[in-house]
Amino acid sequence: MSGSGMPQKVNLCECWARDGLQGWDQFIPTEKKIAILNRMQEVGFKRIEVTSFAHPKLIPQFSDSLEVLKGIRRSPEVTFIAIVPNDKGLDRLLQICDQGIGVQEITAILSASEDHLLANLERTFEEALPPLADLVIRARKAGIKVIGCIGTAFGCPLVGEVLLEKIIELTDWYLNKGATSIMLGDTTGEANPRQVREVFGRMKDRFPGVDFISHFHDTRGMGLANTLAALQEGIVLHDSSFGGMGGQPATRRPKYHKGFAGNACTEDMVLMMEEMGIQTGLNIDDVIDTGLMAEEFCGRHLLGHVTRSGPVRHRSLRPLSLQELRPNGEIAPALLFAGKMKEKLSGQALVGYVIREALAKNWPVPESLRISAEGISPKEELGSRDILVTRFKVLEIQKGRNEGVLEVLSQKANGDVFMEGQIKLIFLE
Amino acid sequence: MSGSGMPQKVNLCECWARDGLQGWDQFIPTEKKIAILNRMQEVGFKRIEVTSFAHPKLIPQFSDSLEVLKGIRRSPEVTFIAIVPNDKGLDRLLQICDQGIGVQEITAILSASEDHLLANLERTFEEALPPLADLVIRARKAGIKVIGCIGTAFGCPLVGEVLLEKIIELTDWYLNKGATSIMLGDTTGEANPRQVREVFGRMKDRFPGVDFISHFHDTRGMGLANTLAALQEGIVLHDSSFGGMGGQPATRRPKYHKGFAGNACTEDMVLMMEEMGIQTGLNIDDVIDTGLMAEEFCGRHLLGHVTRSGPVRHRSLRPLSLQELRPNGEIAPALLFAGKMKEKLSGQALVGYVIREALAKNWPVPESLRISAEGISPKEELGSRDILVTRFKVLEIQKGRNEGVLEVLSQKANGDVFMEGQIKLIFLE
Repeated sequence: MSGSGMPQKVNLCECWARDGLQGWDQFIPTEKKIAILNRMQEVGFKRIEVTSFAHPKLIPQFSDSLEVLKGIRRSPEVTFIAIVPNDKGLDRLLQICDQGIGVQEITAILSASEDHLLANLERTFEEALPPLADLVIRARKAGIKVIGCIGTAFGCPLVGEVLLEKIIELTDWYLNKGATSIMLGDTTGEANPRQVREVFGRMKDRFPGVDFISHFHDTRGMGLANTLAALQEGIVLHDSSFGGMGGQPATRRPKYHKGFAGNACTEDMVLMMEEMGIQTGLNIDDVIDTGLMAEEFCGRHLLGHVTRSGPVRHRSLRPLSLQELRPNGEIAPALLFAGKMKEKLSGQALVGYVIREALAKNWPVPESLRISAEGISPKEELGSRDILVTRFKVLEIQKGRNEGVLEVLSQKANGDVFMEGQIKLIFLE
Repeated sequence: MSGSGMPQKVNLCECWARDGLQGWDQFIPTEKKIAILNRMQEVGFKRIEVTSFAHPKLIPQFSDSLEVLKGIRRSPEVTFIAIVPNDKGLDRLLQICDQGIGVQEITAILSASEDHLLANLERTFEEALPPLADLVIRARKAGIKVIGCIGTAFGCPLVGEVLLEKIIELTDWYLNKGATSIMLGDTTGEANPRQVREVFGRMKDRFPGVDFISHFHDTRGMGLANTLAALQEGIVLHDSSFGGMGGQPATRRPKYHKGFAGNACTEDMVLMMEEMGIQTGLNIDDVIDTGLMAEEFCGRHLLGHVTRSGPVRHRSLRPLSLQELRPNGEIAPALLFAGKMKEKLSGQALVGYVIREALAKNWPVPESLRISAEGISPKEELGSRDILVTRFKVLEIQKGRNEGVLEVLSQKANGDVFMEGQIKLIFLE
């Protein structure tokens, strides 16, 4: 097989709090933004796009950008990133950078297509480049790295094809001004895998040593296929957003909540990479868990696939000892219980068993423990075709009170829902 | 770039009428099944999975399998395929084959995982293989080709990993019995692109000259990425389903209408391949149109991305002459109107202009003409940020009556819907 050029490790940038929310009408309260940004850090994301310094009147979702930056925890190994479209945005950012609560990187915005630039920033190249040069230079002087974003790099809904020469020209321009990495943005999802390999391949040849970032939108369902193509060209830095949220308010593309996909989906991307043996530094269960948090905050199911289907199961349903579920002597934030319940445990009894064992063995159960689990009950219990699958998630365990709340979805083999909802579990022993 | 092993042409099998509907509770009336199967032929699919001979009590959706086979048109260049799970199904099929209204190929079913085989067909390998051998041999004697399907080839939710040796063993078995092609089915969406390359690469080395079929499910969002990987290994035959519909009723996977994806999506797959320069023999506009027909029949939006976003636009918004929209002297079944309306036409006026021109120039307008079109109105009309996009579709034109029905979706740049619904157009001149 090929793919020898594929990186063994990647570094993903989680963009939900910026690109994901950019086109989301409903304001997500500041404390929720902070909560999920903190959770992303716990989960292990090393690059996080925190907010945008677009004018609050233009995108009210980001009217709390300063509060968010002030409120989040600051893991020392995490790079925080904000998009800064103009001088005024940079002025606002630099104020708080002086207080030590800014970002290490900003994203500066250009489009490969001038028509798109006009639609997005209301400027021609001639009008856009001089102030953008000032912005890059000012940021670099303030010790902030600059991602030179080239939007519509793989095509533009207004002009159609985009020339590679233009991307090369703008990359040269960015690097000359001091940009520290270059993002090729498939702003409206026009790229295809062949083109992605060609563009990234030629850009890497032309600019050896430059860090390129892939930023794909899943507008036409090719987000992961394009990411795969970028991986095959050795790209290490990739952008994604929980639930595939995202959009581009300035173009004529309808929005996510109208059923259109946004950015390439974080949960699905992490699963694909981890399944391919490419290290993301992330645990898929934790990532799904954080994706479910995004769903909770948005009040609806989002477009992640893995969020519904769960990760790929590599172990058989042989009985596992609970000890096996306890890597490094600690409880994993999410446990996959893969025991075939020959004991005829199912549903509540099954998860009850796991939790009782955990409590009985005095594991270091945190105040709030999340467990994902899945099991099947034996055929003879329900008739040969009525094999039952129960997916449940422990929403909460009250330590010391021996009780918890479960979210349960049980289905028969034919798909009929057998049981769905939340169940309070009380352990009598 | 690599990908030199990629085929220049592929042959897609449209599986909506079988795999797509397999897990769909709502019965699709026979005449609608026939209508879409006829439309698939018009559109240019050369391989069509028509129905299943599963027991009607088990899957009532296929209780009309004989009627469907009797009712459809029969393009001579199309291969019709049915799934035949057992002897009794073959008995029913052979009856109508004698009347010349059968299929040229059947799909025989096995799983690489014995646990899955038990769940799906309620048989161990020992129990399943002898009757399956009879089935393959009987079909071949009746002049029917046999696709040897190996389900759960990339992993199984019950046993986890599946060994390549098992796939090789079952392929050998199938070929010895007379199977004419081998389908590797990712029945529950467990595959990843690295694995797909490895498995198909090794199978092609081991069985040179054998036709392999890729059949991916999009359960974890990797349907297209896995198809790309199969293309990179030179696979020519690929399965897909409109709207990504599909499911596997026998496994513990929840169903499509619960938000879980099914088969790899036809519309998205065709667009990806065509964009990559791989010939499918299909026109993306026609394919989207047929996907919309599937949505109409199911009474809801399905999971195709391209269905909402439309194909990639390669032309600029420079004014096009209508003549340019008329390849080979005929009206394309779907026209993309890419003219920048400097004349300040928008919405109804814009599409009216196209249609009037078409009628005025006495193009060979068929009884029912479908047009897709998109345009923007000039900035100054709505304020600089309120660029308007109007997507419309002519549902019908009554020839000679100078009228038509339009479906219109107009949105401002911020995503607000400006106009949505159907409009009757009457041309006064």
